Amino acid sequence: MSAYADSVQDLIDAFARLPGIGPKSAQRIAFHLLKAEPEESRNLASAVTAARERTRFCERCFNISEETLCSICVDPKRDSDLLCVVEEPRDVVAVERTLEFRGRYHVLGGAIDHLQGVGPEQLRIKELLARVGPEETREVVICTNPNLEGEATALYLNRVLDVPGLIVSQIASGLPVGGDLEYADELTLGRALTGRRLIQGEST
Amino acid sequence: MSAYADSVQDLIDAFARLPGIGPKSAQRIAFHLLKAEPEESRNLASAVTAARERTRFCERCFNISEETLCSICVDPKRDSDLLCVVEEPRDVVAVERTLEFRGRYHVLGGAIDHLQGVGPEQLRIKELLARVGPEETREVVICTNPNLEGEATALYLNRVLDVPGLIVSQIASGLPVGGDLEYADELTLGRALTGRRLIQGEST
Repeated sequence: MSAYADSVQDLIDAFARLPGIGPKSAQRIAFHLLKAEPEESRNLASAVTAARERTRFCERCFNISEETLCSICVDPKRDSDLLCVVEEPRDVVAVERTLEFRGRYHVLGGAIDHLQGVGPEQLRIKELLARVGPEETREVVICTNPNLEGEATALYLNRVLDVPGLIVSQIASGLPVGGDLEYADELTLGRALTGRRLIQGEST
Repeated sequence: MSAYADSVQDLIDAFARLPGIGPKSAQRIAFHLLKAEPEESRNLASAVTAARERTRFCERCFNISEETLCSICVDPKRDSDLLCVVEEPRDVVAVERTLEFRGRYHVLGGAIDHLQGVGPEQLRIKELLARVGPEETREVVICTNPNLEGEATALYLNRVLDVPGLIVSQIASGLPVGGDLEYADELTLGRALTGRRLIQGEST
């Protein structure tokens, strides 16, 4: 016999399936919802349903959107010749938060990961290549994650984006701001050295 | 302008209000739900709604139940003269998991916490006192949390449960199983010493 009523167990199970929530947290959330005002449960349930029903992928950049095209794609103030390539919609949000990028995006929907059966054909690379010419893209900024899969994807993109006159760049790897040389791992520190910037004098 | 579509922001906000979920986790869960099969969102939304609609408090012990009386209260195999007093329904689950307790429960609905405005009259103590006589309770086991509020509640319960012939006990505080003397805090170690058990010889 389970110690919970069936509907409580179902609720705990539903939360425990979400990423980053273990069985203990799921239990805590479930009891919180049962104790809180009924309105909180109603809000949560309707937020889940509404988000899923109202959103789709932007037809151009594959960001999450409530319309055919997302708010960034339709924004005329965005540089149309600058294209940032990211793995997931959440990465668009991360780049947007920096306030450093005023171009548009292209969301691949993942990274090349042969162990998980994700090759270039599973990603939206065809769609990226189809955009570069018609949108008169000047520069593609590759913003995949600085891990094995992201790097493999960046390498592959660099190869297929071999278009005359197109600049392909990749975000810098290095020490995080506020970080400490002493505690940096060798790979990151190595990258920081390779990617060093000239701050005085001229490069030869 | 928010970087998210409105319905996505609402979803993130709804999750961020849950206990133990910060803004980053809420965002991760939201994007997970948007990427997963629509069925997963539907399941979650209906689990939340169903649990809240189907459950109520057991009329006798105030545990969460789908019926008027909870499954423990109606179980004839339970010792009816042994009553375990806990703060919250989740504590019932914790005690049940030990498989060490075969009596019934009484859920107070919190602990005495004057700073938060919770006095004895906000807890289900009247209801506890009303049960002890009619149910011919032999022993009340106080299982409040071993913190300031739980201890205050235990002290108060011990005073009001001054019924002739009734045994009142409290769960032991001490070192956790698998713990280490060296790393135990002074209070816990002090409690473990005070509550030491006789393992040979006779107490005088």
